[in-house]
Amino acid sequence: MKQFLSRSSSLTTLQRRFAHLNILRNSSFATLTDKDITQFESLLGPNGILTGDAVEPHNSDWTKKYHGHSKLVLKPKTTEEVSAILRICDDKRLAIVPQGGNTGLVGGSQPVFDEIVLNFSRMNQIIDFDESYGIITCEAGCILQDLHTYLNAKGYLMPLDLGAKGSCQIGGNLATNAGGIHFIKYNSLHANCVGLEAVVPGGRVLDNITTLRKDNTGYDLKHLFIGAEGTLGAITKCAILCPPLPKFRHLCLVSCRSFEQVLKILRSAKHELSDILQAVEFMDGNAMETTLSQLNFKNPFESRLYPFYALVEVASNREGTETPDRLYELLGSADDLIIEGVVAQDETQLSHIWQIREEIASAYIKRGYTLKYDLSLAPEHFYKIVDDTRDVISRSPTFTANEKHSIAVTGYGHIGDGNVHLNVCIPGYDDHDLQDRLSGLVDGYVFEYVRKARGSVSAEHGVGLQKAQYLNYSKSENMIHYMKEIKRVFDPHGIMNPYKVLPDAK
Amino acid sequence: MKQFLSRSSSLTTLQRRFAHLNILRNSSFATLTDKDITQFESLLGPNGILTGDAVEPHNSDWTKKYHGHSKLVLKPKTTEEVSAILRICDDKRLAIVPQGGNTGLVGGSQPVFDEIVLNFSRMNQIIDFDESYGIITCEAGCILQDLHTYLNAKGYLMPLDLGAKGSCQIGGNLATNAGGIHFIKYNSLHANCVGLEAVVPGGRVLDNITTLRKDNTGYDLKHLFIGAEGTLGAITKCAILCPPLPKFRHLCLVSCRSFEQVLKILRSAKHELSDILQAVEFMDGNAMETTLSQLNFKNPFESRLYPFYALVEVASNREGTETPDRLYELLGSADDLIIEGVVAQDETQLSHIWQIREEIASAYIKRGYTLKYDLSLAPEHFYKIVDDTRDVISRSPTFTANEKHSIAVTGYGHIGDGNVHLNVCIPGYDDHDLQDRLSGLVDGYVFEYVRKARGSVSAEHGVGLQKAQYLNYSKSENMIHYMKEIKRVFDPHGIMNPYKVLPDAK
Repeated sequence: MKQFLSRSSSLTTLQRRFAHLNILRNSSFATLTDKDITQFESLLGPNGILTGDAVEPHNSDWTKKYHGHSKLVLKPKTTEEVSAILRICDDKRLAIVPQGGNTGLVGGSQPVFDEIVLNFSRMNQIIDFDESYGIITCEAGCILQDLHTYLNAKGYLMPLDLGAKGSCQIGGNLATNAGGIHFIKYNSLHANCVGLEAVVPGGRVLDNITTLRKDNTGYDLKHLFIGAEGTLGAITKCAILCPPLPKFRHLCLVSCRSFEQVLKILRSAKHELSDILQAVEFMDGNAMETTLSQLNFKNPFESRLYPFYALVEVASNREGTETPDRLYELLGSADDLIIEGVVAQDETQLSHIWQIREEIASAYIKRGYTLKYDLSLAPEHFYKIVDDTRDVISRSPTFTANEKHSIAVTGYGHIGDGNVHLNVCIPGYDDHDLQDRLSGLVDGYVFEYVRKARGSVSAEHGVGLQKAQYLNYSKSENMIHYMKEIKRVFDPHGIMNPYKVLPDAK
Repeated sequence: MKQFLSRSSSLTTLQRRFAHLNILRNSSFATLTDKDITQFESLLGPNGILTGDAVEPHNSDWTKKYHGHSKLVLKPKTTEEVSAILRICDDKRLAIVPQGGNTGLVGGSQPVFDEIVLNFSRMNQIIDFDESYGIITCEAGCILQDLHTYLNAKGYLMPLDLGAKGSCQIGGNLATNAGGIHFIKYNSLHANCVGLEAVVPGGRVLDNITTLRKDNTGYDLKHLFIGAEGTLGAITKCAILCPPLPKFRHLCLVSCRSFEQVLKILRSAKHELSDILQAVEFMDGNAMETTLSQLNFKNPFESRLYPFYALVEVASNREGTETPDRLYELLGSADDLIIEGVVAQDETQLSHIWQIREEIASAYIKRGYTLKYDLSLAPEHFYKIVDDTRDVISRSPTFTANEKHSIAVTGYGHIGDGNVHLNVCIPGYDDHDLQDRLSGLVDGYVFEYVRKARGSVSAEHGVGLQKAQYLNYSKSENMIHYMKEIKRVFDPHGIMNPYKVLPDAK
C-alpha cells in the first residue's frame, strides 16, 4: 500500500486562529487512513486525488484567516463519483467539506480539522443552453466568469455577478446563495435557479434538474440546498435562468458630502429609473482611497477624494438617447446632492469604474488582516454602524494611539438591497495579538448592533464558521430547531461540512 | 354543552366523486366532538367558528368536483389563535385543512372527510408597506385584489396577478406557489416572498417575517412552505417584494392560423422586447369561442373567429412613443404570421381583452363539468398534447358520437413560461357516468404524456388531491423520499391537510 500520510501529521493542535471559537474535533468522526485514500484513488484514478503539499492551497482561504488540516482532496468528474464518495464517507464517518472556488469570506469552504476536501474543478462542463427560456444547465464546478463568457456570446448573461467571478464556481455561488452587484435587477439565486442536482450523505442523488419554468409538484427541495453552505449535501449540477444581455449600459459615479445625500439619490434612482435600473452601489471615501492606493487604479476624479460615492447603472436593449437621457435627468434633478459626477463615455471607462467597486475587497486584503462583516440593515442603520464601529474603536482603551491610527474602518456594498460590507483592517498579517484584540472587540459589538436593529448578520456571504455562534442573532429558536431537524434528515451522522452553520446540530 | 353535531352526520360514506382515488379515512384521526367544538368556541369566540349549514360552502370547490364532510370551520384572528388551534389539533389528532379563498383547482383546500377547516378571512390586515424596498407585509387572509388596490395607490403592484384575484387570498397563493399572468415579468413567489410567518402542528410559530432584501443565515425554511399546500403548517403572515406599477401598458391581441406561428411570435417577443415584456399569453379558438358565448363578451374581431390567439403586453414607466413603437415594430415584422391583430387603444379596451383571457376558466366551469390540467411542457409539446387529447377522445369507443360532439377540448395559458392549461369539458354537471368515463380515459393519458415528455403534472396549481397519485410522474423516488421525511419533521401525526400532496407520508 502506498504511504500518503506522514507520521508527523498528527491532528492534536487546534489552530491558533480559532482558539476563541472553542471548537473541538467531533470525536465520532473517523481519522483518514492510507487504506481510505487507496480506496478513493481506485475510485477516482490518480488524477482524482491530491495528497501532501498539493492539499495546502485547499486548507486556507484567500483572506488568510482560516486554516484547516485536511490531508486529502477528492476531485470527482461525475455525479456518480460524488455519490460513491458520499456513500463511503457516510459509511466510514469520514467528515467532508465541499469546496468550490474557495473565494468565500466566512470560513465555510475550508476544513477546520482533518475533513476531506471535495473539489469540483473537474466538474466544469456546460451541459445545455435552452434558448426558449434562456436557461443554462451546467455542472457545479463551472467558473462564474466562464458562464458569463459563454452566455454573452449568445446574447445572455448570468443573473449573478460579483468581484470573485474569475475564480468562484456556480456550485459555491448556489451553496452560499451569493448576491452580488446585479441582485437589485435580477434578484437572488432562489429566484433564478430553476433546477438543481445534489448528492446527500449516503450517496442518494436528488435529481431535480429541469428546464421547466414552473413546477409545483411537492416541496421545492432545491431551495434547502441554496444557501445551506454544503451542510446538507453537495450540489453537482444546476439549471439557471439567464436574462438577455442588455445591449446598452450607462454608468455614473457620483460623490456626496453626506450619507443622507447618497440615500436621497438611491430613492430617486429607484423611483425614477426602476425599469432600467441595473445596479446601485455605494462606497465610502476610505474604500475609494484604499482601492486606488493599494491597486494603483486611476482616480476617476483626478486627485480629488470625497467622503461618499454612489454608482448608478442603467441598461436597455434599445439604442438611442432615451436611457442615457433618463440617467442625466436623474443627475440633473439631484444636482444639489452631488459634489461631482462622471458618466462613463465608453466600455473602458465603464469597466474602470466597476473595477474600483469590485476590487475593494481585494484592496483591503492586500493592505492587511481584515475583519469582514456582511450585513443587511435598514437604510437608517446602513452607514451608522460604520460610524459607530469607528467610534467604538477610537474610544477603546484596548488599543494604543498608533494602533488606532493604523486601523481602517470602511463601509461599502449593495446599497440598493440594504447590504453593507463593513470592513475593519489592520496593515499586514503578523500582529496576531492586535488581530485578536480587534476581533474580540468588534465581533461582539457589530453582531449585537445587528441583532438590536433586527438586521441580518449575513446578507450574502453565509454563516460558515465565522457566524455559526451568531445564528440566533438573526433567527429565532423555533427556526433553528427546525433547521437542525432538517440537517438530521439529510445528514444524520453530521459528516457534511461539520462545525459550520449549525455546529451543534447533532 | 351546546349540541353542534347532529346524530345523522355520520362519516361512513366516501363521496362518490373520489371513489376512483381509493382513499380511506385515516383511522388514527379523532372524530370531532361537541366538547372539542366548545373548546374552540371558547378560544375564538362565537364569531370565530362556523357549524351546521354555514360550513357547507367550505366543503366544496367552485368547479363542483370536490366535496368534503367537515362539521366545523375555525376563523382565527391572530397568529396566537392559529398556534392554539394547531396545538389542540395535534394533541387530539384532529385533522385540519387550511383554506384561503377556496379558488384552487386540484382539491387542495377542501376537506376530504371530516377535517376541520381553518379559514383565514378574519386575518386580512395589511401590516406595513416599506417604501425603501417596496415590500408589503400583511396577514395571510388578505385578498389579492385588495393588495393590488392598496399598492396601486402607492405606485406599486403585487408581482402576482391571476383570474381569481377577487377571491383568492395571499396565504393560499403562497401555499400553492400560484403563478399567474405576470410570472414571465416578475417571476415566482419563491422569488418575491422575502418574509414568511407560519405555524406548524403542535403550535410552534416560525417567525421569519422580515423586510430585509437579503438574509443568508441558515436554511431558508420559508421556501418549504411556499408550494407545500398547507401540508406542513399554516401560513399566517408574509412580506412580499412589490415592483413599481408600470405607468404605461400596451397590449395587442393577434390571431394565427397555426400554433407554430404563435411560437414564432413568442420567440420574437422574448428576443426583441425582453426588457419591456409584461405578459405573453395564449388561447386557442375553442377557448375564445366558449368565453365569448358563455359570458356574452364582445369579440375584439367582430364576429370573426380564428384557430389561435396570442396576447402580448409591454409596459414602461416612460410616456412617449418608444414602448408602443417597439410593439408595433414587432407586429410589423411578424406580419406574415398574423391573420389579424388589435392593439388596445385605451384602458377599457385593454381591460376587455385581458378579461377574455382571465375568464376562460370561469367560462368552461359555466359550460359544465371540466377536467382541468395545468402542465409545464417544452414548446414542441405545448399544444401537441391538446391535439392528441382531442384525438384520443375522438378515437375512443368509450363515448357515443353525440357525447364526442359535446366534449370540448381546449388549450390556453402562460405560453411565455411553457405552462398550458388543458381543459376537457362536458356540458352540465349531471351526467356522472360520462364524467367518470371521461376522467378515466383522459387522466391517465395526459399524465403519462407529461411523464414521457419530462414535463410537470402541476405547473402552478399544485398537487392537492387530484394529482397526489401522479407525483412520481414529475419527481423521482429519492425526491419523494425526502419530501416525506420533511413532512414527518413538521407534522409527525399527519394532521395537516391529510390525503393531499403526499398521501402516504405517514
